[in-house]
Amino acid sequence: MSSRSIGLVSITRHLGPWRAPGAGPAYRQLADAVRLLILDGRLPLAARLPGERELALALGVSRTTVSAAYGRLRDEGYLSGGQGAAARTGLPIPSGAGLTLGGSESAGPGLIDLTTAVLPADPNVHAAYVRALERLPASLPGHGYETAGLEELREAVAAGYRRRGLPTSAGQILITHGAHNGLVHLLRLAVRPGAAVVFDHPTYPQAIDAILAAGGRAVPVALPDGPCADGPGADGMGADGMEADGWDVEGLVSACRGSGAAMAYLVLDHNNPTGRMMRKADRIRLLAGLKGSETLLVLDETLVDLTLSGPPALGASAVDAPRVVRLGSLSKSVWGGLRIGWIRADRAVVQRLAHSRASFDLGVPILEQLAAVELLSDGGAALAARRPLLRARRDHLRARLAERLPDWVCPRPTGGLSLWVQLPAPISSALTIRAEAERLRLAAGPRFGVDGAFERRLRLPYTLPEPALDEAVARLARVAKKVGKGRRSGTPVPEVAVY
Amino acid sequence: MSSRSIGLVSITRHLGPWRAPGAGPAYRQLADAVRLLILDGRLPLAARLPGERELALALGVSRTTVSAAYGRLRDEGYLSGGQGAAARTGLPIPSGAGLTLGGSESAGPGLIDLTTAVLPADPNVHAAYVRALERLPASLPGHGYETAGLEELREAVAAGYRRRGLPTSAGQILITHGAHNGLVHLLRLAVRPGAAVVFDHPTYPQAIDAILAAGGRAVPVALPDGPCADGPGADGMGADGMEADGWDVEGLVSACRGSGAAMAYLVLDHNNPTGRMMRKADRIRLLAGLKGSETLLVLDETLVDLTLSGPPALGASAVDAPRVVRLGSLSKSVWGGLRIGWIRADRAVVQRLAHSRASFDLGVPILEQLAAVELLSDGGAALAARRPLLRARRDHLRARLAERLPDWVCPRPTGGLSLWVQLPAPISSALTIRAEAERLRLAAGPRFGVDGAFERRLRLPYTLPEPALDEAVARLARVAKKVGKGRRSGTPVPEVAVY
Repeated sequence: MSSRSIGLVSITRHLGPWRAPGAGPAYRQLADAVRLLILDGRLPLAARLPGERELALALGVSRTTVSAAYGRLRDEGYLSGGQGAAARTGLPIPSGAGLTLGGSESAGPGLIDLTTAVLPADPNVHAAYVRALERLPASLPGHGYETAGLEELREAVAAGYRRRGLPTSAGQILITHGAHNGLVHLLRLAVRPGAAVVFDHPTYPQAIDAILAAGGRAVPVALPDGPCADGPGADGMGADGMEADGWDVEGLVSACRGSGAAMAYLVLDHNNPTGRMMRKADRIRLLAGLKGSETLLVLDETLVDLTLSGPPALGASAVDAPRVVRLGSLSKSVWGGLRIGWIRADRAVVQRLAHSRASFDLGVPILEQLAAVELLSDGGAALAARRPLLRARRDHLRARLAERLPDWVCPRPTGGLSLWVQLPAPISSALTIRAEAERLRLAAGPRFGVDGAFERRLRLPYTLPEPALDEAVARLARVAKKVGKGRRSGTPVPEVAVY
Repeated sequence: MSSRSIGLVSITRHLGPWRAPGAGPAYRQLADAVRLLILDGRLPLAARLPGERELALALGVSRTTVSAAYGRLRDEGYLSGGQGAAARTGLPIPSGAGLTLGGSESAGPGLIDLTTAVLPADPNVHAAYVRALERLPASLPGHGYETAGLEELREAVAAGYRRRGLPTSAGQILITHGAHNGLVHLLRLAVRPGAAVVFDHPTYPQAIDAILAAGGRAVPVALPDGPCADGPGADGMGADGMEADGWDVEGLVSACRGSGAAMAYLVLDHNNPTGRMMRKADRIRLLAGLKGSETLLVLDETLVDLTLSGPPALGASAVDAPRVVRLGSLSKSVWGGLRIGWIRADRAVVQRLAHSRASFDLGVPILEQLAAVELLSDGGAALAARRPLLRARRDHLRARLAERLPDWVCPRPTGGLSLWVQLPAPISSALTIRAEAERLRLAAGPRFGVDGAFERRLRLPYTLPEPALDEAVARLARVAKKVGKGRRSGTPVPEVAVY
């Protein structure tokens, strides 16, 4: 197996302000912080950690502290290698037969999982499969490999774009195992190791992972802070009815041009985690700014159908240009268990992707594709029913948080599936660590960025039913109280720089 | 987009003996040969070809010949870039709405596709989906993401290994989008760019693509030539009831050790394309030879259930060792349209894979997994029905070839889905090119190796029904006659060296 090392600079950046005075012995806090980095995937597995002496010097703690922290992680199975030998990151091997990572099945009774912002299956999913199964026999005599996707599904996806005002033919569509998988294919085509990739900061964590795994050089561009308090403008809507808290378009353009970026990966239609949507005028400026550049602009539109307030994204998202590639998916709008996504690009790019994907996988299951055709052909009726439900849950969660955690600032997103909460102090990782004891699973703010940013942020999805949200907030309040007690008041720890 | 160049050495190696005296003007033969390399994926797309003068010198032809060949390919859409500018490989953009690569749907009436060795869906597939759909509602409230796979399916796969004499727990199984996709995940985990990867030569073409795409350094190890004529031993069975034409075990071991290979990818249970199976004693020697080495031994067992003559592979394939990882799949034994495969490895490797796959894709559709559970639990009854059918088709194709093309040597494979035919001259690419006019699609021998090897070989799958095989042989005979006419007799062109 390949062997990696984690540098001193890298780990201290990732750790950020890991130590809270009075929150227990330093070695335990250090162990907790490293464990979270491993579980989050922010530290690679089977990678060598710095030596004890070295790390102690860098963190300004005693070697005994580091030694005790490593010892604890070794006992728990998060580190391997005996004392003296190099410590390597790992995961404990469960004693039972099963092993599930990041899934709700390991949850057990009473656990509330707020790490994934996804809905249960749309009520139409089962019926779509039933209809797909009726039509499956026509495909059974074939070999079943469809590198680019079933013609019928490609046409159904293309029709959806045409309804949005984007002229599209089936030949411009490649079917993938979800939008994320589409990004992986595009990275492989367009990004060579060391090439710059621009992305929103914060953004979807798995996208950052994919960009880094492809050898891309991360060029995060910060989203400007939006209005943070409730009151006028708190719903993110300016006087012109569009978001006041948009994008730093000039920053994006200059980052792309300055770094010679091979790709910019942006989520303009309800950025995950913030939920904000880029206004039409900004899109026009963005595309004009990138005209003639070498940057492939990849727009992840997974959440495009989930506008909850204000005008739907569809009008703005019809702004187009030749070097724009769009990713779509049914995972967020319909169900994560239906693994269907797609890429919309020009024909030549789709041809190259269809050719090159074969060294990755041989296409998407036929029945899934037939079910997707059924779901796409209902013309958005299913989604129309989901939006009021999500709107109610979003508002419910915000109200409950305002009641129980009044110093947490929770702007109302215009769409998407989560709140991007601003915490009163950089305690996101601390909350996430302590929440486990309350049977509450959180995704810490830094998971949505690079280099330890967003310790003062927490993503809270509003996809669960109201009673579960109530219970989650009650647990959050208890955890926040414990974390707060461990902190001296009046000594704010500065947030890690976001660049 | 990334921009690659194709070196002079690389293209001349790939071209091999492209010119047959009397088979038409040189420029057309050169254009035909380059077109096939592009269509086969042996030359990357959007890559720059050598200049005309350069290539003419290397091939020993006039510049006019190369210029005319490039011109023809430009007209057809296989090259872009005007005369004078660098020529880049490409694919013609179809004029109609649809584009399908490598699929039978673009086949049209009368086309016979011998490029894929796969069967139509097993009769049980539909019923398995029906039962899976009955059980789907239990999964619909969940988020649907299963990074490692449904616990139930992992257990069903593990039970299959236990029946074969390989103690296995569910925690040792990771569910993938097919065996090929499993190989991609393993390459990513274990092979760094530049690391050596050993494989059988010939082998499964997509595996070669994946190894090269991962940056692996190709170390092909030739399979020794088996008995080639009909008569005693022609079925590949020696006196001891096992194959006489096995593997060069010492060659494999020394290639792994000599190159410090990070991985050896082997198909021991009916190598694709030859169909041969490694005998038990050789497996024991192989594992003993690799003991203590750094090489991860990846065994692709996609065809393990398709033994057609002699004892089933299962006994021999129970030989195991700690650094052995196995790939399995339902694509060949059940249906290609059901995209389910798996990796069997030790728990620690499976944990790392489950963690690292998330930057690739987010798992396999739930319904596919439930259907796979149903198909695996029938205990092989479906396969028992397929074997006699395949045996009959294999023997039928051999008999027909012996009748119509008596100078083609067709050893009888003990299993798998194809014949690995030895041609009387290095004409495999020429046959493949000329076959298109007869509405017959072939995969040329060199597709199964590297550096232009196997021009004297052709893989012929016996998965089609007998009447289709009859028609295919009739067309092959016509094509062979045309290609033969274009050759002076008595001047055999030497086969490109296999190393």
